[in-house]
Amino acid sequence: MVYLDNAANAPVFPEVLEAMLPWLRPDHVGNPGSLHTQGVNAREAVENARRQVAKMIGADPSEVFFTSGGTESNNAWLQNFGGDLILTTALEHDSVLEPMSAHCHRHYIKVHKDGSVDLNDLERFLSDAHTAESNYLPRDGRSTAVSIMWVNNELGTVNPMKEIGTLCKRYHAVFHADAVQAAGHVNMNVKDCGIDFCSMSGHKFGAPLGVGVLYISNSIRKSPWIIGGGQENGMRGGTENVPGIVGIGKAAEIVTERLQNWKLRWGLLRDTFLTDLGLRMPGEFYINGDSENYSSNIISLTIPGVNSESLLLLLDQLDIYLSAGSACSAASAKSSHVLRGIGMSDEDAACTVRISMGFNTTVNEMHEAAEAIVTVSHKLKSMYS
Amino acid sequence: MVYLDNAANAPVFPEVLEAMLPWLRPDHVGNPGSLHTQGVNAREAVENARRQVAKMIGADPSEVFFTSGGTESNNAWLQNFGGDLILTTALEHDSVLEPMSAHCHRHYIKVHKDGSVDLNDLERFLSDAHTAESNYLPRDGRSTAVSIMWVNNELGTVNPMKEIGTLCKRYHAVFHADAVQAAGHVNMNVKDCGIDFCSMSGHKFGAPLGVGVLYISNSIRKSPWIIGGGQENGMRGGTENVPGIVGIGKAAEIVTERLQNWKLRWGLLRDTFLTDLGLRMPGEFYINGDSENYSSNIISLTIPGVNSESLLLLLDQLDIYLSAGSACSAASAKSSHVLRGIGMSDEDAACTVRISMGFNTTVNEMHEAAEAIVTVSHKLKSMYS
Repeated sequence: MVYLDNAANAPVFPEVLEAMLPWLRPDHVGNPGSLHTQGVNAREAVENARRQVAKMIGADPSEVFFTSGGTESNNAWLQNFGGDLILTTALEHDSVLEPMSAHCHRHYIKVHKDGSVDLNDLERFLSDAHTAESNYLPRDGRSTAVSIMWVNNELGTVNPMKEIGTLCKRYHAVFHADAVQAAGHVNMNVKDCGIDFCSMSGHKFGAPLGVGVLYISNSIRKSPWIIGGGQENGMRGGTENVPGIVGIGKAAEIVTERLQNWKLRWGLLRDTFLTDLGLRMPGEFYINGDSENYSSNIISLTIPGVNSESLLLLLDQLDIYLSAGSACSAASAKSSHVLRGIGMSDEDAACTVRISMGFNTTVNEMHEAAEAIVTVSHKLKSMYS
Repeated sequence: MVYLDNAANAPVFPEVLEAMLPWLRPDHVGNPGSLHTQGVNAREAVENARRQVAKMIGADPSEVFFTSGGTESNNAWLQNFGGDLILTTALEHDSVLEPMSAHCHRHYIKVHKDGSVDLNDLERFLSDAHTAESNYLPRDGRSTAVSIMWVNNELGTVNPMKEIGTLCKRYHAVFHADAVQAAGHVNMNVKDCGIDFCSMSGHKFGAPLGVGVLYISNSIRKSPWIIGGGQENGMRGGTENVPGIVGIGKAAEIVTERLQNWKLRWGLLRDTFLTDLGLRMPGEFYINGDSENYSSNIISLTIPGVNSESLLLLLDQLDIYLSAGSACSAASAKSSHVLRGIGMSDEDAACTVRISMGFNTTVNEMHEAAEAIVTVSHKLKSMYS
């Protein structure tokens, strides 16, 4: 199997599974809320994981809240934001865009062709909102928020988070970063970037499904999003998912150690793949989001005239797995709002696939995938013509 | 180790861990939203688990929604209830009582000394609310709800759910059952009991932490509680926790097969323990919630004059683990609202422990626990006197 859909779900690191297993067996059975030794052990495991995650993102452990995943985190930050205007982009994930419409006004900031935020447009609207907002009495002295994804999940484009953070500070806006695709893939320091809220999802970086993180800066007044029991400092009730939390902690530790190596490796894998494609089908494809600043594990590939659904179906028969757009929108069969958002035609969007490498993807797998994509594309083209 | 705090967190069944493990390894890595074979396999595993859970509770699979646990389920049902009055009891879990105060009016129905609902009091208030509610236009034609726990987590008392359901139907009230302590411990059929919403938590019946269920009857108009991505039929966004969901499905299957045997076994364990105690410290203790209808795996034991915290501390040193009240309130050190709710004095509440047997608890462990409790209690009493 050549699995190149790691941006949809990445395999659990073997070391993470090893760390989790004791907590799935009867000798480590304590509820972290219990006062006996079994409970205290579980509590310590949770707090250790909190420190590991805090270290990965440059936060204080008291700012790390465990959730059930990125979507819960993206819903929860919004519940915590008491203001009324959100500046965002049309390229955000559905778990950011959909709950917004229920809560407050949103305005879309322009994006460049590569998918990154237009900082001039952002500053113009922040400045306008800042001037207008003296009428409001928001929860944290700030009634405007900016919500931007750190790494776009379909394009791999990395946004200039530090510059966005600087603008947010200047115009007293709250800054939420959707880092679901960033964690484990780019260097993250929430303090350097002036981030107030930051959402992450374990299953994108070697932790299991069902666990995520919401970072909330200590400078923010917090309110709970799941109530009852008092866990997570009163913000997120419910017995802690100890095995999952131990897993995301271990994954964060591994990321902190190995990210630089992975980045080099992904660069090599990307070059291998694009070189193969360039040699075998020159002029027949193009790459999206290919700016100066991208997360090298994601390749958004358009092959005009080759329908992505047909391509994926035939690749699937060869045990090669990639995706058209994100997994979240795949099932809905409508064209990607991200590709539309960067101005792509519906025709080309329907001919676009995402190749996302993982922590164990090999050079040979990239050769194999490139070879198969070329062969299948040519086969499909010959059928149409 | 003698672990008698299974009502706080029960060990994962070995068969459940076996079923989960493939989904924590790289060869089963699909996101259920992905359209390739790996994704389709994950989707099928989730739907299989939905059928397993549905079978355990007598529901249709389309009425089963996976959550991150009982607390999320208890929050979510409330968000789905569009009415304005909830009839409940003072003995409910914090994850039921706390979010209510933010959403609507609540009224406490009387409970009997054993912790079960006073059906006459319930009918009186349902009748009053029914007469008064003609002024409202609630979401489901019903503006009153009844929220009652199926099995009390500190006492083991089983409520007369069928009778409560009949009253709810008669007075057109929505019926929510908090079945967190019931699943895996008593026979459940949500249709027979006329239940509209039912909350469950995996880690109380052999599934892992971090996964739960909210049953919502097809007769209820639903609204989402986590938004974005469209998972769980649009009601609960976020990539599905495949290993956890596979785990809770398998646990439900095991419960369906083995519950009758466990109930016999727990009865024997309970008799063993109480006989030992009766022989060794007659007249020095009493049992709470000991009605005709109880879940035999929970024993609420009061030993007047023996402080529960001291007792637990000394038992902990002997590797015997039980709890004072529930794990959720243990850390807060205030006396149990359940014990206060059945009219116990603060003095006796401070001398009450909960012994909760698991799926693998043995007769010898009960002998050992009884022996230790007697010895430690007498030691503590001699120290005070």
